[in-house]
Amino acid sequence: MNNIPAERLARELFEEMARWPIFDPHTHIDPHRPAARHFDEILGYHYYTELAHATGMPVDRVAPELDPATRAANLAEYLDRIDSTVQYSWLLEIAQSFHGFPHDRITPRTIGELLERADRRHEGAAWDRQVWQASRLEAVFLTNEFDDPLEGWDTSAYIPCLRTDDLVLKLDQPRTIERLRAASGVDVQDYAGLRAAIGRLFERFVARGARACAISLPPDFAPHPATPRRAVTPIRKAIHQMDLRPDEQEEIRRAVFWMLAEFCAEFHLPFDLMIGPIRNVYPAGVPGGRDLFDRRVSLYDYRELFNHFASVTFPVSTLAPDAAAELVAYAWIFPNVLPMGHWWYANVPAFIAGDLRARLQALPKIKLLGYYSDAYKLEFIAPKFNMYRRVLAEVLAEDVIRGRGWSVDQALQLARLVLLENPRRVFGGAGRDASPTLTI
Amino acid sequence: MNNIPAERLARELFEEMARWPIFDPHTHIDPHRPAARHFDEILGYHYYTELAHATGMPVDRVAPELDPATRAANLAEYLDRIDSTVQYSWLLEIAQSFHGFPHDRITPRTIGELLERADRRHEGAAWDRQVWQASRLEAVFLTNEFDDPLEGWDTSAYIPCLRTDDLVLKLDQPRTIERLRAASGVDVQDYAGLRAAIGRLFERFVARGARACAISLPPDFAPHPATPRRAVTPIRKAIHQMDLRPDEQEEIRRAVFWMLAEFCAEFHLPFDLMIGPIRNVYPAGVPGGRDLFDRRVSLYDYRELFNHFASVTFPVSTLAPDAAAELVAYAWIFPNVLPMGHWWYANVPAFIAGDLRARLQALPKIKLLGYYSDAYKLEFIAPKFNMYRRVLAEVLAEDVIRGRGWSVDQALQLARLVLLENPRRVFGGAGRDASPTLTI
Amino acid sequence: MNNIPAERLARELFEEMARWPIFDPHTHIDPHRPAARHFDEILGYHYYTELAHATGMPVDRVAPELDPATRAANLAEYLDRIDSTVQYSWLLEIAQSFHGFPHDRITPRTIGELLERADRRHEGAAWDRQVWQASRLEAVFLTNEFDDPLEGWDTSAYIPCLRTDDLVLKLDQPRTIERLRAASGVDVQDYAGLRAAIGRLFERFVARGARACAISLPPDFAPHPATPRRAVTPIRKAIHQMDLRPDEQEEIRRAVFWMLAEFCAEFHLPFDLMIGPIRNVYPAGVPGGRDLFDRRVSLYDYRELFNHFASVTFPVSTLAPDAAAELVAYAWIFPNVLPMGHWWYANVPAFIAGDLRARLQALPKIKLLGYYSDAYKLEFIAPKFNMYRRVLAEVLAEDVIRGRGWSVDQALQLARLVLLENPRRVFGGAGRDASPTLTI
Repeated sequence: MNNIPAERLARELFEEMARWPIFDPHTHIDPHRPAARHFDEILGYHYYTELAHATGMPVDRVAPELDPATRAANLAEYLDRIDSTVQYSWLLEIAQSFHGFPHDRITPRTIGELLERADRRHEGAAWDRQVWQASRLEAVFLTNEFDDPLEGWDTSAYIPCLRTDDLVLKLDQPRTIERLRAASGVDVQDYAGLRAAIGRLFERFVARGARACAISLPPDFAPHPATPRRAVTPIRKAIHQMDLRPDEQEEIRRAVFWMLAEFCAEFHLPFDLMIGPIRNVYPAGVPGGRDLFDRRVSLYDYRELFNHFASVTFPVSTLAPDAAAELVAYAWIFPNVLPMGHWWYANVPAFIAGDLRARLQALPKIKLLGYYSDAYKLEFIAPKFNMYRRVLAEVLAEDVIRGRGWSVDQALQLARLVLLENPRRVFGGAGRDASPTLTI
Repeated sequence: MNNIPAERLARELFEEMARWPIFDPHTHIDPHRPAARHFDEILGYHYYTELAHATGMPVDRVAPELDPATRAANLAEYLDRIDSTVQYSWLLEIAQSFHGFPHDRITPRTIGELLERADRRHEGAAWDRQVWQASRLEAVFLTNEFDDPLEGWDTSAYIPCLRTDDLVLKLDQPRTIERLRAASGVDVQDYAGLRAAIGRLFERFVARGARACAISLPPDFAPHPATPRRAVTPIRKAIHQMDLRPDEQEEIRRAVFWMLAEFCAEFHLPFDLMIGPIRNVYPAGVPGGRDLFDRRVSLYDYRELFNHFASVTFPVSTLAPDAAAELVAYAWIFPNVLPMGHWWYANVPAFIAGDLRARLQALPKIKLLGYYSDAYKLEFIAPKFNMYRRVLAEVLAEDVIRGRGWSVDQALQLARLVLLENPRRVFGGAGRDASPTLTI
Repeated sequence: MNNIPAERLARELFEEMARWPIFDPHTHIDPHRPAARHFDEILGYHYYTELAHATGMPVDRVAPELDPATRAANLAEYLDRIDSTVQYSWLLEIAQSFHGFPHDRITPRTIGELLERADRRHEGAAWDRQVWQASRLEAVFLTNEFDDPLEGWDTSAYIPCLRTDDLVLKLDQPRTIERLRAASGVDVQDYAGLRAAIGRLFERFVARGARACAISLPPDFAPHPATPRRAVTPIRKAIHQMDLRPDEQEEIRRAVFWMLAEFCAEFHLPFDLMIGPIRNVYPAGVPGGRDLFDRRVSLYDYRELFNHFASVTFPVSTLAPDAAAELVAYAWIFPNVLPMGHWWYANVPAFIAGDLRARLQALPKIKLLGYYSDAYKLEFIAPKFNMYRRVLAEVLAEDVIRGRGWSVDQALQLARLVLLENPRRVFGGAGRDASPTLTI
């Protein structure tokens, strides 16, 4: 070991990891249409439309009413502006590995060939299966709206996850209450009805195999224990679309969020907290490319939640890359706080490397939930995981093999824990105890 | 490529870059006297006086009333305390490369020799030209007060830039209004007069070849759309030196700033935002060495500005090194936000490397405005750019050549874009469209 | 030098540094019982109990009423969950280097053997001396409560340090005033009495060889000049346990803190500021494992303190790892602000490396106070310093030898300054001038 350079060790580690199955605990995959039938569905990923737009592409060049080939060709005109990015590298990896694209740049000249090669409309579900197998996918967690019927797919592969943003942040919108009534079968009129309805949602999701509840929260949200007494009036007003004072709106957010945490405790579901985004900061952006954050955020605001719900596992993602070090400290102390993946604006190798290094050095290995793809189409899962696996391989090669004298096998065992065994255990299902206390 | 170590690749890349011209989009050079005639002008750079003072040098050891040789000799007594810093390395590079200084330390024993070697008083402007040529300078942006007559130099080499701090932050000081009246020829008495006067400034600057408007803003400043109706009274009170309430002072800052952005839109000038400094935090410090920052700052406060002025390009620098990751996200989403250089307290290789890596990985290559020197004397430009070019070479060697298999030529093309082509395009002049939408 | 890889250079540098004496300017060592007589005292370090608890170990598994062998065996059951951490590596280094432990994992199977090997109860003080010598300890700073009698040990080896948290943060607790009266011999009844009593504490501590005053401060604390006029009533109320308004509590914290700084000036004592912790954020945690922080903190809040007490040296530690860059800037400008060590949640190689690199690049070398162990038992000092020395060696090898062409000897001189000479000078004793202005 003593004379092998870190770079070669990293390559070896990566090659081994690249053969492993992928357990992906957070995506936005549509289980009815998981892989892309047309390459426009790949290029339509907001990472590309927003980056192209950020270099000057007008929003209407990728308008939904355009036909897919035109939209893809339009976007391709801007790809040379972002071809040094890691996001672009995922795109190229998809083109090359899934579609045999022989070029090393996607340009207006080569886009036609790529669209043809990547045309899977005739293959249908067979293509989904092919991507699944080629990527060695084991489990893909979904992001299901609370009124998703959760029917029509294999929920042991595409695992339901109850997404709750609308309930917490948009309860005062008429559409939310209507959807909730329809989904729950409860005629929600007040606090008690709301609780009953949400309880029904949990029952249904768990019955259909959901293994997590998830929410994204703005930086100004600070959970506090809600008392029904204080919440009952604002919630009634929200349900009946009456005007709400700002403090009442805040009380509603807190009360519904707290209620969700209570149900996570009751149903033994991990509660994924995705902390930081502010929606629609740039309203003129492309769809999916309008949200940003305020970096002045702290997990200290979550202390009451973590203390109160000792039995609930909270896999936490933070959006502001500079907030990552704080998450290391909170996961170091709170048994129920687990650092999860590297999210969105923090999903960049430079940020991942620093953060991952700290997590590996300072945190119990059984608490590390390595990575999730956040993908909208199956094809993205492998390239994104490969990016992470490369960073993980480098960190392990440098810090753990070269730095501490571990063997390659020991390093791989640690990688396997982080990538596979921890996520499998923590997201093992509502019937099981998801806490990290489980013997491993 | 496969077997060349990153360190050697980095050296190759650096050597090539070191032969390129320098386009420096932000300095404090005095175009009437750009290079140093006496080494005291080099040693008087606040980086050295403040670092020496921070190790205990009394302020009066570098007092302006001392003669230059004494002042330089005084400072030299403290240089051994900072000779491990990167700031010191610029000094030594100047001494060695411009003045043939044969030693590797500047000490009380060698300072006399250095002062002699660096005495360019007899050479005058010829020395300016020599430094210009030896440094391969192509364009040096100035920092011009709004009442700078902008006369007496070649504005195609030393490019005017309208600095507007005083207008926004000191409008209520009698001197500001007097200067504004004198510079604009407008008898400013109220809001309308203020707008007319500022319009005249823009006209004059643009006519004289200005290619940017610039401002440094304290961390508590949050731009908001100003309405003349709300601003008219506070501005009149400020002009007439009447007492202002804090909210009126805030309204003035916002109104004048918004007005500047409107003129940037009208005159197609990029508006450099240098976010973070608080002036005079340490009043007992040396001149130029009294300012610091509060790291609790967010670009979220600038969202209305970025949204409203879609046609204005905002090259943004942040002072708090830990705020760098947020700028990556904002430049990723907003077409008109461009990350610019590595400023002041963030201009340290350790901070540059992490930040640059993230920018290169995550952002469209055509948006990266690599570096500026912030220099007060021409001699500093090359050493500072060399520092940056070394970091850039290392990042490209490791990430892009070793990590992603690019060729040396491809890496150099990217470096050229970042160092030269992007700044040339974005700061191409008021007559041109400075937005990054331009085809490249 | 030109062909030796950085990794080998780093190893050489480390091996040399590992032979140096250790000057440790901040620990929690009990001078009456500095080394561990039983390995349970090592395993009882909160780093292990809190990390084990964070993986699910119930708090009562390490309850104080258990016998040491049982407690140690209980904890050992959880060590496999944290055996990839750097904290664990200190543990293993202690077991192997001090006790000849022959295995490379501490497990339920090997814990018995380790307890036997590490049983030093019969050796008593001889063991303390052995650890002292084996670790090449030169000076170990203590953390003494203000009413510590400071008797019964060699204060030139175990150096007293006046810890003042209770005076500033808990003055309104009856126990604090009682202790203060007893320790000072002053019948404290009001502001004047408080000042007199605290003056006595300083006298006693300095007479007994104290070389620093220290305090840890929560992130919401902002020092302000206190006026006796404003503080006199709240302080009287606190002393007599009368109800205090929040603004009065704040006034007390500020007044007592300011008074301490005045005494530091009078007695020429450095005032260690340890900024950031919030106590008892996780009350259900193990002892010592309940504190966290809010990362939204800034040294800007300390500007009046640093300005007012120009003659007091402030060695500063920040708890939030992402606040480190700001400390670099403040130490760059303020003569009396010195960056000290890498504290607690920031004491992780990934964080140390980035921060240390910036400090070395940007700050005067004579201001760098390299490291302190924060240890509770002597055995931890060497492994923790070794961790730091490894990081320092890597940074010097990469940045300074490979990057700037320094010789190994020059790099070692810099390391020696940072590790030994600066701490010796700055913490040279109350009789000496502790400012960094001293000629070196």
